[in-house]
Amino acid sequence: MVFSDKQPSPTVRELAEARVLERIFPRLPHAEAALLGPGDDCAVLATPDGRTVVTTDMMVHGPDFRLAWSTAHDLGWKAAASNLSDVAAIGARPTALLIALAVPDSMPVAFLEEFCDGLRDGCAALAPGCGVIGGDLSVSATFTIAVTAFGDLAGRRPVLRSGASPGDVVAVSGDLGRSAEGLRLLFAEGVDENGEPDRQRAAALRSAHPHAIAGHLAPAPPIADGVRAADAGATAMMDISDGLALDASRLARASGVTIDLERAALGDDVAAALHGGEDHGLLASFPEGTALPGGFRHVGTVVSRSADAVLVDGEPVTPEGWDPYRAWDGQSG
Amino acid sequence: MVFSDKQPSPTVRELAEARVLERIFPRLPHAEAALLGPGDDCAVLATPDGRTVVTTDMMVHGPDFRLAWSTAHDLGWKAAASNLSDVAAIGARPTALLIALAVPDSMPVAFLEEFCDGLRDGCAALAPGCGVIGGDLSVSATFTIAVTAFGDLAGRRPVLRSGASPGDVVAVSGDLGRSAEGLRLLFAEGVDENGEPDRQRAAALRSAHPHAIAGHLAPAPPIADGVRAADAGATAMMDISDGLALDASRLARASGVTIDLERAALGDDVAAALHGGEDHGLLASFPEGTALPGGFRHVGTVVSRSADAVLVDGEPVTPEGWDPYRAWDGQSG
Repeated sequence: MVFSDKQPSPTVRELAEARVLERIFPRLPHAEAALLGPGDDCAVLATPDGRTVVTTDMMVHGPDFRLAWSTAHDLGWKAAASNLSDVAAIGARPTALLIALAVPDSMPVAFLEEFCDGLRDGCAALAPGCGVIGGDLSVSATFTIAVTAFGDLAGRRPVLRSGASPGDVVAVSGDLGRSAEGLRLLFAEGVDENGEPDRQRAAALRSAHPHAIAGHLAPAPPIADGVRAADAGATAMMDISDGLALDASRLARASGVTIDLERAALGDDVAAALHGGEDHGLLASFPEGTALPGGFRHVGTVVSRSADAVLVDGEPVTPEGWDPYRAWDGQSG
Repeated sequence: MVFSDKQPSPTVRELAEARVLERIFPRLPHAEAALLGPGDDCAVLATPDGRTVVTTDMMVHGPDFRLAWSTAHDLGWKAAASNLSDVAAIGARPTALLIALAVPDSMPVAFLEEFCDGLRDGCAALAPGCGVIGGDLSVSATFTIAVTAFGDLAGRRPVLRSGASPGDVVAVSGDLGRSAEGLRLLFAEGVDENGEPDRQRAAALRSAHPHAIAGHLAPAPPIADGVRAADAGATAMMDISDGLALDASRLARASGVTIDLERAALGDDVAAALHGGEDHGLLASFPEGTALPGGFRHVGTVVSRSADAVLVDGEPVTPEGWDPYRAWDGQSG
């Protein structure tokens, strides 16, 4: 794991925890729901609804990202985006994040500062008012990011995976396959002669294909559409993190139904749309005749109970996601 | 990192995520405050107070624990205990945990099951009714445990670090230096000829010194005393995770006061009491004359404003904690 040397900066080891925290705290986005922020043994979050939506997710260097490809800003943005998307997927408005980091002590403090800027910009763009309410900073040989996100249902019923019924419309908001296209480009052209992730080639690729590369490294899922879907009467919902085919099969199984997707609704690259991961858009079902809210568009129909399957134009599709990081050496790039 | 081979078990890689989760979910302790548990993109937690106490903490193989010394059950127990203690330290009752794990894919599933049993037993012993409401399972070369804990203030004001006033009594509940004694024994006698953590020697040591070794590997902090302290009018409180001297200096700084500890109240091993970490007891200040609740005992007095210092019998003490793990090779043991 090699950090970019674009900024001269002391490392985490050189500054030590207390002074690192002094430098990064002012850069963190404020959470409007924070009644008590960092500095004590706990934070205190306002939860006026009487319920709190909670979710946690880890990003690990190697399986989940490469420093040769992602900037620190990308990682902060994506750590926010992927967790905000889980909150949106149950029909809640994201209110706050807890950020636990385990970092190599050779990490420049400037890298952590840029990571915090990514968190701030991600929250501001995707979920205004949501911010960081606390966290933890540890040392590890493997850079690891653990985020917990909170959300407010504001009196709404949570939208689960299990509520889809035959006759419902199946709809998606957000990208399908854009992240997979970016990842494919990075593995094809963002590597050196030995197949190792390469910083310069990834940067050049980003200039040439900004839409696809940013779609993978710093996705901008439609967070506000989660609440819109709940308000429009969504019967089931989840975030599309492992590809539409696999995630639709999970929703189908939870609901005890079959989902028939329409090939014509899946864009030019149907394979990427079905099997590409990490778009973090929303998959939802709505009662027939619902005016689809926000960015939702029709992609299929719930066709019958108890088959627990996903079809495309009536033909079964293998519910596989795409995960090329898994087979890679986590110590490289 | 080498896993014990005491139980034949498939590895995480062999079973894959869905089947691993099927095996561990039934072993997790139920959270009474769970309105919606694992299975959807989020969990939903009851927060009838209108506020939720939240905290997060990571444990990383190498800096924070060694598999040659800690059993999986120890790690589950300690992951619960150390986070429950942060919730207690603000005067709240722990209600739920989120558990995010990044594990080597060579980890036996039986290890994860035993880890869940440790979480269950730790919650049952220390905070009945608190359980696991959700989590995440990732793959990493470095075994990493990230816990988020939630607590209910039930109408109480949170007890911060900043409320101590001159004249207040300073009190501690729980062990002082017991974890440090266990850690000292492990580093002295729980290693092989090359100084590497050794499973057999650690097990023998545990038979010979169960109190000290368990105090480090599976501490049992006085969680219920957090609410008792709040109800008794504690003016400031925090958990003692880095040694009494260092943590008292933090409370003194937050409150703008000086704390004078009494040597005679610190037990036989004053150095371990002052500088040993990870006891996870509670340090609190109370108005003079307060009948100390639960297991709290007098250890000193708040003596004057704005010096931000810690004294022992009137003499300044260096606010240093003890952290021998940091200098060790994180890949060994």
